[in-house]
Amino acid sequence: MSAASLRTAVVIGCGTTGTSVALALTRAGVEVTLVDENPRAVSEAVTAGAGTAWTPRCPPADLVVVATPPSEVVDTLYSAQARGLGHVYTDTAVTKDIVSAEAELRGCDLKGYVPGHPLAGPDAPGPTAAGANRFTGRPWILCPYETTPGRVLETAAALIELCGAHRLELAPHVHDRVVAELSHGPHLVVAALAARFADSSPAFLGLAGPELSDTVRTAAGDPWAWSEILAHNAGPVADVLDRIAGQLARAAAILREGDDLAPLELALALEEGRRGEARLGAAGHLRTVQDACAGGRV
Amino acid sequence: MSAASLRTAVVIGCGTTGTSVALALTRAGVEVTLVDENPRAVSEAVTAGAGTAWTPRCPPADLVVVATPPSEVVDTLYSAQARGLGHVYTDTAVTKDIVSAEAELRGCDLKGYVPGHPLAGPDAPGPTAAGANRFTGRPWILCPYETTPGRVLETAAALIELCGAHRLELAPHVHDRVVAELSHGPHLVVAALAARFADSSPAFLGLAGPELSDTVRTAAGDPWAWSEILAHNAGPVADVLDRIAGQLARAAAILREGDDLAPLELALALEEGRRGEARLGAAGHLRTVQDACAGGRV
Repeated sequence: MSAASLRTAVVIGCGTTGTSVALALTRAGVEVTLVDENPRAVSEAVTAGAGTAWTPRCPPADLVVVATPPSEVVDTLYSAQARGLGHVYTDTAVTKDIVSAEAELRGCDLKGYVPGHPLAGPDAPGPTAAGANRFTGRPWILCPYETTPGRVLETAAALIELCGAHRLELAPHVHDRVVAELSHGPHLVVAALAARFADSSPAFLGLAGPELSDTVRTAAGDPWAWSEILAHNAGPVADVLDRIAGQLARAAAILREGDDLAPLELALALEEGRRGEARLGAAGHLRTVQDACAGGRV
Repeated sequence: MSAASLRTAVVIGCGTTGTSVALALTRAGVEVTLVDENPRAVSEAVTAGAGTAWTPRCPPADLVVVATPPSEVVDTLYSAQARGLGHVYTDTAVTKDIVSAEAELRGCDLKGYVPGHPLAGPDAPGPTAAGANRFTGRPWILCPYETTPGRVLETAAALIELCGAHRLELAPHVHDRVVAELSHGPHLVVAALAARFADSSPAFLGLAGPELSDTVRTAAGDPWAWSEILAHNAGPVADVLDRIAGQLARAAAILREGDDLAPLELALALEEGRRGEARLGAAGHLRTVQDACAGGRV
């Protein structure tokens, strides 16, 4: 299926991600219908121009996008397939290993479903702000099963193209390790740092430089949404945390021992940090990702 | 001594801090002479308008500011006092417990010296950019001895006023715990996070959201300068690192155990982080510090 032949879509879940996908598809001329267990979420999305409310009279759509919280994706997918809402299904959950395994165990029709994850990041107006450009220029990861038919991948590719994103295929466990390293692990590290100031006085915090606020900004994210994400990517995130905890404990031990080599050992550790910061900054300049992901696999 | 009666000053150490102090004093009409073991550093500071090169013919100045790296402060102070460079001495080192104790052990004249630390933070054009406004509106901490004479404190207060900063008095060990919590500890945590990307491929890092770059930005700091700072504040920094390492290890254990309460426990930890981020942001709005430090002590 080419992007031009994607005509109708159902988006289930009218949160930030679902509404953004619906807005992008609507803008591209796709006829979008919307589902959410909360009727108000549907009417807000309709008001925003994301499509119209889905009704049982709607014929099966070319594509169904399941954009619920991760823990509800598989049940929602199973039920949508059982009710015949569409021909091809994908989801947008931020973890993929559990979702793709559970979809198989639950008996979902894998011949009509490909797991997916659009990596938005909050370049958008705000972390909770839906917009048709939310995924423009960003990677959109697909985690196909070995048996996923070509027509399913083509429909998902059409979705990604219409959202202005860049398609990338990863195995589910690789995907989960990638987001653990780049997003989920760092989120918890930043939260642990910020938590130290939860009960601090304004006089004490007034002594902080402005760079500390920048460092801990992501800790402002919704604790319940993040908690669900982290629990869904438990093993890879725990690995990241354990390694960073080990590095910090080693640095503390070097400081306490305080032998003559301490400054050298610390400087070497900090130099690693400087190299990492520089590489990350350099990669940011390639953020269109077309270059970075030219090979299609990381 | 009022700010108006501070007429002459020697600044020893023409790095970012020393040059910024010299620029502020020169702008205020103080006659500033400059010392650095590197003649090029002196001539660059002179070219920048920070003052003139000190010569042995200069009469003793009203104030001598020792702005060398922390490990050289005490020797520099001792030698400057022995040579009679001025009447009152202060320093700008970012740690204070070791510096003030060593100055006493070394036999420096404590009747003419008050340890100090201007908290600039990189609001300035860049972390290494000297400027007359580098300390404007920021706290400047003094750590007087019990025996520090009033005239010494008044001269230091005049320096702080002319730099546009806000004077705050803290005991040296309290100062060191404050900067360990707000700056030195977070620096190492960020470096440990950034170090994970030191050898990552551009394709992998291209998947990172832009917020990760913001999170790890401070890791770009000079490893050798930071290593010296950390080694000089070893105990308090090690305490911060151990506690954060413990929190991360606990979060990892919660994730691995994966029982039904895991999402709740994680959410509570993340909520602490959210509260800390919010308090820090609120304190930032008070950053003139006049309000926050109205009591004079944290």
